[in-house]
Amino acid sequence: MPSPEAISQTVNRYLDLVAKGATDDIVALYAPDATLEDPIGSDLRRGHDSIREFYAGFQDLKKDTELAEIRPAGAEPAFLWHLTLDAGDTRTRISPISVMTFDEDAKITSMRAFWSPSDVKVG
Amino acid sequence: MPSPEAISQTVNRYLDLVAKGATDDIVALYAPDATLEDPIGSDLRRGHDSIREFYAGFQDLKKDTELAEIRPAGAEPAFLWHLTLDAGDTRTRISPISVMTFDEDAKITSMRAFWSPSDVKVG
Repeated sequence: MPSPEAISQTVNRYLDLVAKGATDDIVALYAPDATLEDPIGSDLRRGHDSIREFYAGFQDLKKDTELAEIRPAGAEPAFLWHLTLDAGDTRTRISPISVMTFDEDAKITSMRAFWSPSDVKVG
Repeated sequence: MPSPEAISQTVNRYLDLVAKGATDDIVALYAPDATLEDPIGSDLRRGHDSIREFYAGFQDLKKDTELAEIRPAGAEPAFLWHLTLDAGDTRTRISPISVMTFDEDAKITSMRAFWSPSDVKVG
């Protein structure tokens, strides 16, 4: 099992990369056969190609992320975080609760993001 | 699938009962073959008897609960909440992120609480 420190580092790196990073660097945090469900209830994505497609879709948006709360329980942390999308005159904020699982190399094996359209704030 | 309102009601009733309710009333929110993992990484409990044993262990403590954030995504909400245990001169606060799943009758089919000893604050 990866150390809590390794998991915490990966979560923080994930949020940094979602804000400012390249899609391929995000994908590299995932194990090859990892799954992604974002938001919860949407079709499950599996594998690097499908995961890359997901992140590439919003790579060019100006955005920021902030970690609010994290519960690093063994290899399966849950964390509340904020994603702010800045489209010039409108800012959109989503605050998902995400749950990740990890393999022994601290690669993400699954990511599930709990949020729904009613959690999106535009201002 | 139960309505978001029914799920939200059950989550709120769950927190009310954890604070002030009877163990049997909490257990009644669960489906008969439901599972409970609290905290994450502990042995999985399955079924009403095992679930009752869990809640009975702290029924007599003076305590309060507060819902901080909830992401009601379909039949699987994630929520951050606060549990305050009042032992007279010491107050202990735990703020888990919990994830529940529900059946068609809005009974809880699984509950997983993400927290670890390092999240417990004594003051």
